[in-house]
Amino acid sequence: MNEIARTIAATGEPMGPAEFELAIRAVGAERYHDKHAFHKLLHGGKLNKGQVQAWALNRYCYQAAVPRKDAALMSRTHDRELRREWIHRIHDHDGLGEEQGGIERWLVLTDALGLDRDYVISMEGALPATRFAVEAYVRFVVEQPLTVAVASSLTELFAPSIHRERIAGMLQSYRFVNEEVMAYFKRRLSQAPRDADFALAYVKRTAATRSEQEACVDAVRFKCNTLWVQLDALQHAYVEGNVPPGAFRPTA
Amino acid sequence: MNEIARTIAATGEPMGPAEFELAIRAVGAERYHDKHAFHKLLHGGKLNKGQVQAWALNRYCYQAAVPRKDAALMSRTHDRELRREWIHRIHDHDGLGEEQGGIERWLVLTDALGLDRDYVISMEGALPATRFAVEAYVRFVVEQPLTVAVASSLTELFAPSIHRERIAGMLQSYRFVNEEVMAYFKRRLSQAPRDADFALAYVKRTAATRSEQEACVDAVRFKCNTLWVQLDALQHAYVEGNVPPGAFRPTA
Repeated sequence: MNEIARTIAATGEPMGPAEFELAIRAVGAERYHDKHAFHKLLHGGKLNKGQVQAWALNRYCYQAAVPRKDAALMSRTHDRELRREWIHRIHDHDGLGEEQGGIERWLVLTDALGLDRDYVISMEGALPATRFAVEAYVRFVVEQPLTVAVASSLTELFAPSIHRERIAGMLQSYRFVNEEVMAYFKRRLSQAPRDADFALAYVKRTAATRSEQEACVDAVRFKCNTLWVQLDALQHAYVEGNVPPGAFRPTA
Repeated sequence: MNEIARTIAATGEPMGPAEFELAIRAVGAERYHDKHAFHKLLHGGKLNKGQVQAWALNRYCYQAAVPRKDAALMSRTHDRELRREWIHRIHDHDGLGEEQGGIERWLVLTDALGLDRDYVISMEGALPATRFAVEAYVRFVVEQPLTVAVASSLTELFAPSIHRERIAGMLQSYRFVNEEVMAYFKRRLSQAPRDADFALAYVKRTAATRSEQEACVDAVRFKCNTLWVQLDALQHAYVEGNVPPGAFRPTA
């Protein structure tokens, strides 16, 4: 925090909209999981198939939790317009009618990696740290003030660049990855910005006091932490070779 | 309970599917709110406009809570197929895209009754008993086992007949009610049976033990109670003339 920011924080004046947005975006620059060593290994083609399997298997837990998290948010608001907008996130992940949605696209990825679908869905082989982090995110959205819960989704502001990097890096690096397998990330390139724009405008409009704004910035930090923890756990288990009891053990 | 049923209950044997369904339907025959005195007054054209306003204003609280209740249920299940089916209930009430949904249709009814829309939405004039009953229903769905939460929706098995009766009775009885105003109920004639069929099949499939089945039957009783309480409160306040402090006072 620079001198001026420190003075403003001390006086308790709310940030202006531009300053508030910058504070949110600064969290991404500092700690979004594209900075993580495991991410760099994944996208740089430095992992073997078993390690990519472990990543996809664990990340499934997060994908599968997203609609529960979004439904929890919807269950908390009397604002019909907010629910009517937010429901698209559930459609994106669970699908709607003929459209099968993002979770199914994720299972296409795990299928292609040679993982048994029932095993993936059971989450039996997932790292406990993954599941704890994911459920911490769901609980955060259940329990925090609504605006703060909305703010925790704002890591989507940082997602398109990681997805573009991931698509390019993984297609180039791994012979077991093709365009069909990467369909999840391609779809998210258009979904995430729309969602993030709405959520950012909502948070800027509804977080009125300095302390509410700071709680929103903290929510983005919290969310980054839940993502970072997942990559830490993968690195510790599957790069450094400390697979905990009961977790997936690659044979590939 | 007859002698055979008593013996089965004592031995803890699960009911067969047909017997289980009969037990659920028996709750409706015993205590669904179509048996309530206020319901008979409403549909029989025995209420004045102020009393119908009070009913519509209070019932709005219930309508508006339904998507929160359904999102809460969705937030609790890892079963994507259940979420993909259940989300239609949110679409029905909140609308989807161009379609404005059941809550908006309810506001068309309160508009036509000459109530200020912001006042209705604020719920300021609603009876406290209404709001407590409605929130008790939302909490029930948040807190009970999932199958039991699903079972609490099964009052929809009994809804089409009440809606048919209501449409006919209200159109015939009240000059301030027309076809457009009754659009909510007309739509529910097709929505409720589809939802009820799904929920009944789900409950019959997943409630495996006698005690789970009984908890489901109790859930339908609980739900009937939440509906009955709302009509009791209306009757006490607006028929017997005991309007509590702060509640809507008709001028019509």
